[in-house]
Amino acid sequence: MAIQEQLKQWQELAQQLRVDSIRATTAAGSGHPTSSMSAADLMAVLLAKYLSYDFDHPDNPNNDHFILSKGHASPLLYAMYKAAGVIDEDELMSLRKFGSRFEGHPVPLIPWVEVATGSLGQGLPIGVGIGLAGKYLDQLPYRIWVLLGDSESAEGSVWEAFDHASYYHLNNLIAIIDVNRLGQRGQTELGWDTQAYAKRAKAFGWHTIEIDGHDLEQIDRAYEEALSISDRPTLIIARTKKGKGVAALEDLDGWHGKNLDEQQAKEAIKELGGERHLTIEVQKPPTNGHPALPIAHPFHFPTYEIGETVATRKAYGEAVKALGAAYPRLVVLDAEVSNSTHAEDFAKTYPERFFEMFIAEQQMVAAAVGLQVRGYQPFASSFAAFLSRAYDFVRMAAVSRAKIKLVGSHAGVSIGQDGASQMGLEDLASLRAVCGSTVLYPCDGNQTAKLVEQMLGCEGVVYLRTTRMKTPVIYSIQEEFPVGGSKIVRQSDRDRLTIIGAGVTLHEALKAYEHLKEEGITARVIDAYSVKPIDVETLHQAAKDTDGNLIVVEDHWAEGGLGAAVLDAFAGNKTKAKYQGLPLNLIKLAVREMPGSGSPEELLHAAKIDAFAIVEAARSLVESQVIASQN
Amino acid sequence: MAIQEQLKQWQELAQQLRVDSIRATTAAGSGHPTSSMSAADLMAVLLAKYLSYDFDHPDNPNNDHFILSKGHASPLLYAMYKAAGVIDEDELMSLRKFGSRFEGHPVPLIPWVEVATGSLGQGLPIGVGIGLAGKYLDQLPYRIWVLLGDSESAEGSVWEAFDHASYYHLNNLIAIIDVNRLGQRGQTELGWDTQAYAKRAKAFGWHTIEIDGHDLEQIDRAYEEALSISDRPTLIIARTKKGKGVAALEDLDGWHGKNLDEQQAKEAIKELGGERHLTIEVQKPPTNGHPALPIAHPFHFPTYEIGETVATRKAYGEAVKALGAAYPRLVVLDAEVSNSTHAEDFAKTYPERFFEMFIAEQQMVAAAVGLQVRGYQPFASSFAAFLSRAYDFVRMAAVSRAKIKLVGSHAGVSIGQDGASQMGLEDLASLRAVCGSTVLYPCDGNQTAKLVEQMLGCEGVVYLRTTRMKTPVIYSIQEEFPVGGSKIVRQSDRDRLTIIGAGVTLHEALKAYEHLKEEGITARVIDAYSVKPIDVETLHQAAKDTDGNLIVVEDHWAEGGLGAAVLDAFAGNKTKAKYQGLPLNLIKLAVREMPGSGSPEELLHAAKIDAFAIVEAARSLVESQVIASQN
Repeated sequence: MAIQEQLKQWQELAQQLRVDSIRATTAAGSGHPTSSMSAADLMAVLLAKYLSYDFDHPDNPNNDHFILSKGHASPLLYAMYKAAGVIDEDELMSLRKFGSRFEGHPVPLIPWVEVATGSLGQGLPIGVGIGLAGKYLDQLPYRIWVLLGDSESAEGSVWEAFDHASYYHLNNLIAIIDVNRLGQRGQTELGWDTQAYAKRAKAFGWHTIEIDGHDLEQIDRAYEEALSISDRPTLIIARTKKGKGVAALEDLDGWHGKNLDEQQAKEAIKELGGERHLTIEVQKPPTNGHPALPIAHPFHFPTYEIGETVATRKAYGEAVKALGAAYPRLVVLDAEVSNSTHAEDFAKTYPERFFEMFIAEQQMVAAAVGLQVRGYQPFASSFAAFLSRAYDFVRMAAVSRAKIKLVGSHAGVSIGQDGASQMGLEDLASLRAVCGSTVLYPCDGNQTAKLVEQMLGCEGVVYLRTTRMKTPVIYSIQEEFPVGGSKIVRQSDRDRLTIIGAGVTLHEALKAYEHLKEEGITARVIDAYSVKPIDVETLHQAAKDTDGNLIVVEDHWAEGGLGAAVLDAFAGNKTKAKYQGLPLNLIKLAVREMPGSGSPEELLHAAKIDAFAIVEAARSLVESQVIASQN
Repeated sequence: MAIQEQLKQWQELAQQLRVDSIRATTAAGSGHPTSSMSAADLMAVLLAKYLSYDFDHPDNPNNDHFILSKGHASPLLYAMYKAAGVIDEDELMSLRKFGSRFEGHPVPLIPWVEVATGSLGQGLPIGVGIGLAGKYLDQLPYRIWVLLGDSESAEGSVWEAFDHASYYHLNNLIAIIDVNRLGQRGQTELGWDTQAYAKRAKAFGWHTIEIDGHDLEQIDRAYEEALSISDRPTLIIARTKKGKGVAALEDLDGWHGKNLDEQQAKEAIKELGGERHLTIEVQKPPTNGHPALPIAHPFHFPTYEIGETVATRKAYGEAVKALGAAYPRLVVLDAEVSNSTHAEDFAKTYPERFFEMFIAEQQMVAAAVGLQVRGYQPFASSFAAFLSRAYDFVRMAAVSRAKIKLVGSHAGVSIGQDGASQMGLEDLASLRAVCGSTVLYPCDGNQTAKLVEQMLGCEGVVYLRTTRMKTPVIYSIQEEFPVGGSKIVRQSDRDRLTIIGAGVTLHEALKAYEHLKEEGITARVIDAYSVKPIDVETLHQAAKDTDGNLIVVEDHWAEGGLGAAVLDAFAGNKTKAKYQGLPLNLIKLAVREMPGSGSPEELLHAAKIDAFAIVEAARSLVESQVIASQN
């Protein structure tokens, strides 16, 4: 195509994207037309000339990746799909309607959307993850294009991504920042100071190109230049106008996230030259490139002898290393604490499948999401406390329907001297409250190994909680620990109460069992290693067998953790009470005051979650029952 | 003092700080001596010449502020206290021991520690908050000194702080980065490339000074230069050696977070010239400067008529604006969505007490923590979903014993078309699982206003959840809503079940009540506006009165929210079952599948948390009871 003809086509396409963004949002009665219009020229050129993507085969490993980090510009994305000929008019107009996959912000129910966006500042760090996959694992020449808004550059996570992308020399990553100057409620921090963006990105090791984001020739040259950069990522800083193309909207405050009414839309569309129905032939990548994968070998679990002591964090490291042999797509990330989480065991054996993410937990989780886009099975570890740094990323991973494995070490007061800042005491609560998540909490080495293997088979976000201190091995390697199950570790036919623990508190429960036995009180002890899903049946049976006398003990705040999971087992969903008409005398032992420093034993005791506290609670339950039966 | 004499004193002091860091950690059997030693020279000069701080009066408003962002270097901080003559040998040696306020990482149990550190990358953003207080509110000339580690610069939150500090021209903020090259498990990303740090900070608008962090004269000059900068914050980039001063430790990997054994300590102390017991006279600021505060006026609550509809987010904005008149220390922050959260109502009336934090939720929460250090009462708002971005900061705010108020708007599926990424569905779970937190969830305008006022009196982290859609006003402005209470909004002496809702679901409960009444089923309806603490007594009474038939309905994931709070009301703490021997037939209605776009009504219905779902659940409870009584 001659240059002039091409420019004409791009211009028409850009106007179509604008018109369709307006039409779809006006029909929806909500949405972000003006944020779509500012980037229409950028996307027109990308779609028509640079994006290499096989819409018929979104699983083609050679496809480029496109992430709309400014997810609120979804009308623009859907208009691109229409222009690519893969959705029809009706689908475009289903935007934001109940039951439509074309939601207010993109989700991977759409086959060409790989990750959900809409929480700003996440697209670029996820792009870094795909970039790592492309450059170091797949070793395929695809590109990752990320369209950012200017407002979202205020998020620190964006700078974690700038930092990591240059550290890892991700020349396959091309970010475009749509500097339309206006945020939701007024001017952004940097306004149109594109030079300030360029300075910052350069200081972080990126190649930068400043352009007028409405000049199609400048856009074309910028993409071409970006493709030629071989040693670093590129940021294209495009000065644009929000609402570009319609005088009543252009560069005006107060138009963020607002649709035009019918009349306004009519006039705007007229000003844009009317409706168009161009279809673009998007270039397709070859189908013959395939990811370079290591060969799978049989694996051997680390095994621990009953009675020996080992920290579950250490068992995690040894298990994930062992599994590395059999699962060539298993990759490990860590936030600069791999010698504490024991991710280093894997890193030393499989350095090419280990990614050091430094102290940047948001980037770590985002990279995990990016890696699983390319079919890898990422395990990402840090202290349980510090995973809280990435909570919004974990939340969004669920919206992305991503399969990621998180491992939090140093959970609870049992870490000892380091103090409260290092104690993960809200991890079970926060991770349980993630849609579709699985939460596992092993108490010994062999159980850890088995659970790590099972994590590979889980959908969604899976969380493994590990312990700093060494704990005795109580299970043989032959035992199985299905997700959703539990282990009854002590029981008799005259149990008067049930003690439910997991991880470090299971061992306290076992000590308490012995004390109570000496007092003539027999207890059932349940290891609730699967915190979510919890083993409802076993808990119900135990409650029935022990007159509803339950003690749950956890090294976690009193809210949302194991105790909450156990209580939930006795609550009905929707239309049935699960435990109709039966009493439930439940005592929840948990951390209720801010802990300080001390030995693990001192801190477990002070928090009243050790064997002493369990014994006391057990006595009170049994006594209450005696009194009740006497009345 | 002559220059040479001064240098000699500083040198002696620095060696003392090193020796004491070693002694304390060796006695503790754990801790971070080498991370303390790298910064000893920097701290010696700061303490001896530049810090202006009245240790006898930590509440002197003119005091400088010092934040040890690299909190693991706590031995250094405690050694500084000893050198300042405010703690004795025994206290220094109590480091990390059970019951000692000298914990592994600093906490404000120590009178000179204003905020807890230990989760990296938080000290600088908190410093920004104190800087805002100093420059814009107090209008006092104190400085904020922040000592950072180099590893923590990988945290995006550090760059949010760099960004905001320059945007707000915080020349009162002086950050020192201890570039000792080594992180926990090896070299940092940038190693000793101090120029790279300088480039980045400069690009973010800071003045930078690169020095040898062990050259006392360079340190002295750097501080002096920093004090002379009048339009921007300063970063001093100090090249140092981890373990400086002891050949067996200096710049060596594998020594992070490790104490020396007795013999090693003995040799190291010898190499450092032995124990010293210098005491430094730290310069004190004047006592006659006082913060500039606006005058308090009486305030008038916004009032809404019963039956009128108003969004609780709007009522929040109007309430916080009203309270602004009476509470001169009330300040408001927002993350660039003030026109959605309605923080803008306050911002327009009190622009001098409003801080736009742009889309940087971590920095927003950190700034709130910094502002409350100076006695301000910060309200920080964003979408409930996006507060998850700052979860680690909220967690640490609790460790800091900070009094901050968080407001999350757009909670739940009831936001409608925007989709799951914008729906706060884990906010109740995550905020409940914060030590000492209070969680409030109003259902109408008048209740919102009253709760906002009560937030001012709460200790710790307080969270208010608001709703996007308008809801009918059901309470008169005369009603009171104490924290920890609830409202019984419907009851009779023949209630067969209890429906518990809050916020948007309370209105669904009221609709369900009418349906059920028509069917001859009378229900009690409880408004559990105080989610934490929950009103245990009222719930127990209701359970007793309605045969244990409870339905809890919430616009939140099924884990950790209102339903969990209600269940917790029936669980004992420590040694007593709270609800001994009685049945609990509880149905929890909550969001259990990933929602999409749609109208609020469609989404509440699809999630089975609307009036229809409540009616269905109620019928099943009543029917089960009939069947049970027939058996």
